Amino acid sequence: MKPLAVSMGDPAGIGLELAAQVWADRQGAPPFFLVGDADAFQRAGARLGLPQPNLRVIANAAEADAGDAFCVLQTPLAIEETPGEPDPVNAGATIAAIARGVAAVHDGAASGLVTLPIAKSVLHTADFGFPGHTEFIAHLTANDAWPHTRGPVMMLAGGALKVALATIHTPLKDVPAALTRDRVLHTARVVAEALRRDFGVANPRIALCGLNPHAGEDGHIGREEVEIVNPAAEQLRGEGIDITNARSADALFHEEARKTYDAAIALFHDQGLIPIKTLHFWDGVNISLGLPIIRTSPDHGTGFDIAGKGVARADSFRAALRMAWQMAERRAEA
Amino acid sequence: MKPLAVSMGDPAGIGLELAAQVWADRQGAPPFFLVGDADAFQRAGARLGLPQPNLRVIANAAEADAGDAFCVLQTPLAIEETPGEPDPVNAGATIAAIARGVAAVHDGAASGLVTLPIAKSVLHTADFGFPGHTEFIAHLTANDAWPHTRGPVMMLAGGALKVALATIHTPLKDVPAALTRDRVLHTARVVAEALRRDFGVANPRIALCGLNPHAGEDGHIGREEVEIVNPAAEQLRGEGIDITNARSADALFHEEARKTYDAAIALFHDQGLIPIKTLHFWDGVNISLGLPIIRTSPDHGTGFDIAGKGVARADSFRAALRMAWQMAERRAEA
Repeated sequence: MKPLAVSMGDPAGIGLELAAQVWADRQGAPPFFLVGDADAFQRAGARLGLPQPNLRVIANAAEADAGDAFCVLQTPLAIEETPGEPDPVNAGATIAAIARGVAAVHDGAASGLVTLPIAKSVLHTADFGFPGHTEFIAHLTANDAWPHTRGPVMMLAGGALKVALATIHTPLKDVPAALTRDRVLHTARVVAEALRRDFGVANPRIALCGLNPHAGEDGHIGREEVEIVNPAAEQLRGEGIDITNARSADALFHEEARKTYDAAIALFHDQGLIPIKTLHFWDGVNISLGLPIIRTSPDHGTGFDIAGKGVARADSFRAALRMAWQMAERRAEA
Repeated sequence: MKPLAVSMGDPAGIGLELAAQVWADRQGAPPFFLVGDADAFQRAGARLGLPQPNLRVIANAAEADAGDAFCVLQTPLAIEETPGEPDPVNAGATIAAIARGVAAVHDGAASGLVTLPIAKSVLHTADFGFPGHTEFIAHLTANDAWPHTRGPVMMLAGGALKVALATIHTPLKDVPAALTRDRVLHTARVVAEALRRDFGVANPRIALCGLNPHAGEDGHIGREEVEIVNPAAEQLRGEGIDITNARSADALFHEEARKTYDAAIALFHDQGLIPIKTLHFWDGVNISLGLPIIRTSPDHGTGFDIAGKGVARADSFRAALRMAWQMAERRAEA
């Protein structure tokens, strides 16, 4: 299998030092190459006191291999980075690294893409017209063949829990209106297909959260379960998807409850992010489901406040690499 | 100190068997007496195969003591209970048990009240005009002297986390409107006072959740943090309460984050209930803060589906007893 591509993220954040850290201690990590600036990568490692890596700067992703050298698909910064001080002048390189990473997977030169964190506020000043990675990657792959339900659907995953989101960065007051029957249907279809295809679950069981306290108590605390969520679940079961009606979200995430499903669908941000980050704060992985390319990322931000200090933890990035690799193996087998 | 009063809850639920179970294995449990039906208590124990208890049926709470016998402040059912089949005809006794328990604490015959679960749907058919225990107890104690900020504020507590709620059983779509500045102020004042008075925290630190994803990202994902939550927090800090601005709720409940505060305030049901039940599904305790009487309860429902089968776990009820006793000790010392 081809190595994974890793896009550098914001060079003023912790991304490059995580890449340097994992390369320096790559035992057990799947093969990967960096799409980014080779000099910035070296500086990030030097700041951490890591030994000088054996680098191979390449101009074409097809040259990346899993040899002894660390391959960098050169994507130069406009100016040298300052850890903790993001500069919009480097936004173009950050964006280019993502696009070249996507292209590498598209062209078969990489098995999947792991994206290191970007800062939306920095990219917006550079007219980046997407809310984040996921939408940008969906855009870049919109014309790729994909004989499945097309996402993206965001999933957060750790060893103890997989949870997908029906709405993501929606202000809370707008969540009820955003939560249409179609949205529940679409989310669940993408999740069910991904569990089979990418996670090897032959007969996936999906637990669906309610929107209201106690999943609405049969309509006594809100009507969305009765009018939208449960009818969607019934339709999905008619399609052969093993999904529950809306369940009380607070009773869904303790150890015994987690044994009753392979993935949960949360209806809004905190409902899904609170349990995953309570259980997997350090090693949770963000996965974009339903895309023609495999894409994962660590479940944290740029860490500008700790960048360059050598205190950033690479657990989540390592887990994102492993997850992308496992998914790629399953797609390769299929 | 006087024993705790325990109201029997719905006699068709698991409450009486939990009381029988804990009395039979009372090592380490604080002293308590039952406000309920003595025969129903005996039947609940017999169903579990517990030895016949040494009962003392009393007509006045002042006769309850911590001797060898188990005291029952007799509050007779209208008809014999059938486990799992609640009967509204017994609603009067269920309600009377709560009221007599409150009176016992009010009169100084009990140190605090632990309520076993009731079913709102059963009580509503008996014209019980309150959403639940908390509001009923607040009503019963409304004229009692209370030289502090008057609650009730609902807190859920386990060894790893205390979380209080600014809104409770509000449909999600109504939460933003319910979340006034006054509500945040009131919740935080009650929590801060309770941490000092009832939990012995000299300088309590309170973490405040945001309403929106990422606490609104400075107003980019919802305005409530900027317009309501943070101004309330600033006013509270001006009153000497150590409370944060709105924090991203998903980053607030992992182990390291929990070390930064003594209690968190969640703005809506699932935001607070998901983390407490993920961490403390079996042994969480529900506490009514800011009332003239101490009141705790197990953090679960009537369990009609498992009542009488001997499988109900008493962890939460035990924890509720211990919590009420500790709070009573602190109030007694003060």
